[in-house]
Amino acid sequence: MALDSAAIRAEFPCLHQSVNGRPLVYLDNAATAQKPRAVLDASRRYYEEINANIHRGTHHLARAATSAHEAARETIARYLNATDPAEVIFTSGTTDGINLVASVIGLGGILAPGDEVLISTLEHHSNIVPWQMLCERTGAMLKVIPCHEDGSLDQEAFRTLLTDRTKIAAFTWISNAFGTVNPVREMIAAAKSAGALVLIDAAQAAPHLTIDVQALGADFVALSGHKAYAPTGIGLLWGKRAVLDALPPWRGGGEMIKEVTFAKTTYNELPFKYEAGTPNIEGAIALAAAFEFMESVGLEVIGEHETKLIRRAAEGLSALSGVRLYGPDDRAGALSFGIEGVHHYDLGTLIDQMGVAVRTGHHCCQPLMARFGITGTTRASFAVYNTEAEVDALVTAVDKALSMLR
Amino acid sequence: MALDSAAIRAEFPCLHQSVNGRPLVYLDNAATAQKPRAVLDASRRYYEEINANIHRGTHHLARAATSAHEAARETIARYLNATDPAEVIFTSGTTDGINLVASVIGLGGILAPGDEVLISTLEHHSNIVPWQMLCERTGAMLKVIPCHEDGSLDQEAFRTLLTDRTKIAAFTWISNAFGTVNPVREMIAAAKSAGALVLIDAAQAAPHLTIDVQALGADFVALSGHKAYAPTGIGLLWGKRAVLDALPPWRGGGEMIKEVTFAKTTYNELPFKYEAGTPNIEGAIALAAAFEFMESVGLEVIGEHETKLIRRAAEGLSALSGVRLYGPDDRAGALSFGIEGVHHYDLGTLIDQMGVAVRTGHHCCQPLMARFGITGTTRASFAVYNTEAEVDALVTAVDKALSMLR
Repeated sequence: MALDSAAIRAEFPCLHQSVNGRPLVYLDNAATAQKPRAVLDASRRYYEEINANIHRGTHHLARAATSAHEAARETIARYLNATDPAEVIFTSGTTDGINLVASVIGLGGILAPGDEVLISTLEHHSNIVPWQMLCERTGAMLKVIPCHEDGSLDQEAFRTLLTDRTKIAAFTWISNAFGTVNPVREMIAAAKSAGALVLIDAAQAAPHLTIDVQALGADFVALSGHKAYAPTGIGLLWGKRAVLDALPPWRGGGEMIKEVTFAKTTYNELPFKYEAGTPNIEGAIALAAAFEFMESVGLEVIGEHETKLIRRAAEGLSALSGVRLYGPDDRAGALSFGIEGVHHYDLGTLIDQMGVAVRTGHHCCQPLMARFGITGTTRASFAVYNTEAEVDALVTAVDKALSMLR
Repeated sequence: MALDSAAIRAEFPCLHQSVNGRPLVYLDNAATAQKPRAVLDASRRYYEEINANIHRGTHHLARAATSAHEAARETIARYLNATDPAEVIFTSGTTDGINLVASVIGLGGILAPGDEVLISTLEHHSNIVPWQMLCERTGAMLKVIPCHEDGSLDQEAFRTLLTDRTKIAAFTWISNAFGTVNPVREMIAAAKSAGALVLIDAAQAAPHLTIDVQALGADFVALSGHKAYAPTGIGLLWGKRAVLDALPPWRGGGEMIKEVTFAKTTYNELPFKYEAGTPNIEGAIALAAAFEFMESVGLEVIGEHETKLIRRAAEGLSALSGVRLYGPDDRAGALSFGIEGVHHYDLGTLIDQMGVAVRTGHHCCQPLMARFGITGTTRASFAVYNTEAEVDALVTAVDKALSMLR
């Protein structure tokens, strides 16, 4: 099924503007996506009609707000194919979710000196730094799956790195920098066989792929709303109930407690155990609306559409002289490239003059850039509302910029 | 200067509705405030016109979003009279901010076994549990300032509890449960003289009082947006630059780093050191809009208006038989009461039938309730948009409910 681009674009107010006198071509979706009217309306409607603090309230609005918030959790649990809505923990984003897991693993005394945490070369800083901090605190060692020259992970090396000391393996589903799609199901199965806990960074996967947490088989899946058409400040951590139940709490405060005395505090059940304080109520509701928006278009339709765009961009760009594409041929979401003799920053600045928004730099992946001996790339990244004409505008803009820069 | 209630109420869409066939009387503001159009519009405009991920972006929208986000920080810094916008750390709320401070104090090795953390009987769970967790991890002891029968803190006991072992003192400015206004400037000065770090929970103060962080003299001030007319999911931690600079980071991820290699990571300057990951960009902008809304009305005008309402409510309610008011006569924001022989839950449910929204229960202050030998109270709490007619509606509703319940 093809996608009705005009109808979809009409739903995204931010797309309809000029930048530097040219129609905006927004190809920075891996950084953050634009928001459809349905998401903005869900948020506004919440504040105009039912805003109140949730849980424990006897009055009408408090009950309505609680229902709306917990209905959002149920929608999201169904969307992720979670067995239980209590496995969906609202966070402020992927970074918050990964830090939650790393912190409670530390507090839970799961790591002993000499134990190993396994991540990959493709990780975003948010899936590196929390584990480095955890290793520093516990004496565990950070191990890193290397990647091939084409930006795919070295699966043989991965198998070798998995040992009985591997207590946690954390890797991304899709590389934000190169668009590499990791074979996560196989990797999760291997890590689980080795006895490790497994966390999947699904920040980039969420806008492009169906996420079925039961089929995945990981222990934790973290994602952000804002890359998947929802607002900033909301995300989720899905965790297996038995695993979350066995881990200690992290942030302390209201809602996460069962009973507080100055002598002793006992903690609440999931999901509240990990949701201290007033949550981002509006954000949870808007996140559910964003998932419903993606479902209404169809995740497969979205994926196919974006793949077509990425391939067209790869073809167009690789025809230009001196262009090197990073990542394997089978990318999702993002296409990264470098151009001989041209700094990515200069290129980004010039094509912005032509209305084309891309991201340049290290994409919060300095170790990956170091692996390829570069300081950064130019990255075009795609969403459901992008069009072939926009891909062509990108290629034309890069071509023009090159003639100016060289 | 008096307040133009009709004009102000017109700015709050959520107030104009019927609940159970009666006009809504929203007196649950200490739980969360309703949002003015200016705040909702700031958020919507951000998404319709300039949404992009901030920092490191070369393109037009990324620069516009960065400017808007950092302009919000500057507005807020000026509002708080901070010496430097870098002292304003965006968080997801008060709970997040207090947990941040408690965690980095723990990680920074500031507490030794036998050291003391001093809090008060009036604290919300969010200013109790993080310190209990910190004490458990470090072997420090939690000390608690008792309160008098009128709900004010025992200042003599406070002075006695301050010793050279007191490494941190954390207390609320205004009690969310009783509306007690603590003499924070004097308390901060005493705690600073004893050599303690001082954190002020300003969650309840933010909607009612001018906050001048330099005049206060604390090391940290934490607050939530949503109680001060801003959305949920955004808050701030103000901290003294020298203190924050000396403490280690908390959450790891993008933006909070200077340089990442798998061998070693170095951290960014303030405020970014404490802002890992994509922040709640919309929320920060909306929080600045909320502060500007309060400034446009005038903090003194707001405070005087609310005090008038609280006094009227206290008079009206105390005239009913069997009513006990909690807290001292000089309250801010909230008025808590109990009625002999009537459960707060039943009362709350009945007056909700008459359109009056109040909060019932322990208000996340179980130790304070235990101190008074009760399971909870009924709490009416006030905002700029409440009116004398609404106070009268509350008193009438309670009176009617009593005749039904007794």
